[in-house]
Amino acid sequence: MQQAFAGQADIPPAADFAAAAARVRTSFDRQAAMRLIGARLERIEPGRAEIALPFRPDIAQQHGFAHAGIVGAALDSACGFAAYSLMPQDAGVLTVEYKLNLLAPGAGREFRLIGRVRKAGRTITVAEGEAWAIRDDGTRKLIATMTGTLMTVRDRDGIQG
Amino acid sequence: MQQAFAGQADIPPAADFAAAAARVRTSFDRQAAMRLIGARLERIEPGRAEIALPFRPDIAQQHGFAHAGIVGAALDSACGFAAYSLMPQDAGVLTVEYKLNLLAPGAGREFRLIGRVRKAGRTITVAEGEAWAIRDDGTRKLIATMTGTLMTVRDRDGIQG
Amino acid sequence: MQQAFAGQADIPPAADFAAAAARVRTSFDRQAAMRLIGARLERIEPGRAEIALPFRPDIAQQHGFAHAGIVGAALDSACGFAAYSLMPQDAGVLTVEYKLNLLAPGAGREFRLIGRVRKAGRTITVAEGEAWAIRDDGTRKLIATMTGTLMTVRDRDGIQG
Amino acid sequence: MQQAFAGQADIPPAADFAAAAARVRTSFDRQAAMRLIGARLERIEPGRAEIALPFRPDIAQQHGFAHAGIVGAALDSACGFAAYSLMPQDAGVLTVEYKLNLLAPGAGREFRLIGRVRKAGRTITVAEGEAWAIRDDGTRKLIATMTGTLMTVRDRDGIQG
Repeated sequence: MQQAFAGQADIPPAADFAAAAARVRTSFDRQAAMRLIGARLERIEPGRAEIALPFRPDIAQQHGFAHAGIVGAALDSACGFAAYSLMPQDAGVLTVEYKLNLLAPGAGREFRLIGRVRKAGRTITVAEGEAWAIRDDGTRKLIATMTGTLMTVRDRDGIQG
Repeated sequence: MQQAFAGQADIPPAADFAAAAARVRTSFDRQAAMRLIGARLERIEPGRAEIALPFRPDIAQQHGFAHAGIVGAALDSACGFAAYSLMPQDAGVLTVEYKLNLLAPGAGREFRLIGRVRKAGRTITVAEGEAWAIRDDGTRKLIATMTGTLMTVRDRDGIQG
Repeated sequence: MQQAFAGQADIPPAADFAAAAARVRTSFDRQAAMRLIGARLERIEPGRAEIALPFRPDIAQQHGFAHAGIVGAALDSACGFAAYSLMPQDAGVLTVEYKLNLLAPGAGREFRLIGRVRKAGRTITVAEGEAWAIRDDGTRKLIATMTGTLMTVRDRDGIQG
Repeated sequence: MQQAFAGQADIPPAADFAAAAARVRTSFDRQAAMRLIGARLERIEPGRAEIALPFRPDIAQQHGFAHAGIVGAALDSACGFAAYSLMPQDAGVLTVEYKLNLLAPGAGREFRLIGRVRKAGRTITVAEGEAWAIRDDGTRKLIATMTGTLMTVRDRDGIQG
């Protein structure tokens, strides 16, 4: 999808990404809900966030697969932090809406939730997310995709998940 | 919204709802993820499910509000079980996709997640969800809405959240 | 859906709705695309817009039903104008995103597209849409639902469909 | 997005794509609505469809840009035909739902609507769409993205847009 990169040409360079990354990590660490489900922020780059969610029986639905809503919660965070990483230091990010499509059962030993900014606007940012399952044999399978709309807010800080 | 009822005229009468309700409760009880976040199935009626989610600090995002993704996970379950309540005894329900719009911060002592079937088709069911916050003074505020697409599956049982 | 009304309690009273209605009608009349498909603005109320779309062979898909995308275009306008009707006189409205669920084929002699504001915020408005088919015998059938996210913009006027 | 290709590894090879392509073209040619708005099917490949939509004043909204709903209608067709291109000869395709995010105004001399299958399942196919504006100077700008859910149906033929 070369066009994806053209689309991503809209992303402004992060003036001081070290500070932005630190701000994202601090914000993530304050999300008790991410701790509850066992999600870790693996990587943060300008306009991209990757979250790891190890499978645990207590995040499962009744068939023993990861619950789609829990995968969605972690993927929402990945999209939100990807957007937040490109926002002004004094701004916060708000999730306006997101859509999750489920492509395959949440079967795997770990999941990787990747959020990418598709368009970073002054007020509205659109991010795309992918949820990958890592199977016991190490192979990866795309299990869900997300499109999220995020808003830059000036009157609060951090993400409002 | 009188038209909503016209839309709901499509809902087939559940031949034996006692059995359907029992099946839904059993399926819900098997969702470890709902236990993890503290969600309870409050009510199940033909084409309608209501889930209660008490606020706890460990489902919060960094501002101390309920994490949107956790609210979304419980609302996805409400929509899924509302759909499942109308399906044939031998069928299972699969979440195809859902969209969550966030209307207000997740501030409250408890949340009520209500899923309603809008259209029950042979293969595809469309459900609408509402997330309500119950404030300390007992007042209710709509904090999120969802539209979910569910599929009736014959080759497995229970909801694949 | 009593709760829908609770949700709609958020709608601010339109200070001078006559002016708002006139502004909506002017904006609609300027939408050449609505003329092309034969859509008419039937009614505008605070937070609610109703558009009529008579069936014509040239808006059909290959089975002779109204094309879902054309129904979606008219429903997007209904949601956008419902939102616009509640916005400040000097503001414009921008469609951020919308989701369309198709419930039944677009079979009918006319379609009614109804947009309603669910939550009117300072920057973001969420509207819900319903597409109804009017059959030859005059009965109505819900054929599609929409959730749309609209933004209030200050630096332009009218809807940017 | 290397992962996109991993995700697309799910696409089955089209046994006889010449026949599938002919079937797609016939179906497109029967969509009067696409003719009405001036859309042409430019290319059809296994799991990918590209539609050209020249700008015309009669597809505009009141600012003179292409109406988002018209762009959405053409993009819905691109996603639907991308899905249809991978379906069995005796099957038809039905649009279950789609979500459109608007990234930039519909300003350009022509638009290219590209639909790609992300996951082709037995019953459900998920497609992603991109709408590109071609500016007067020949540069391209991504103006909208779509995620669409399509269903393989056995009891009718062609796309039900």
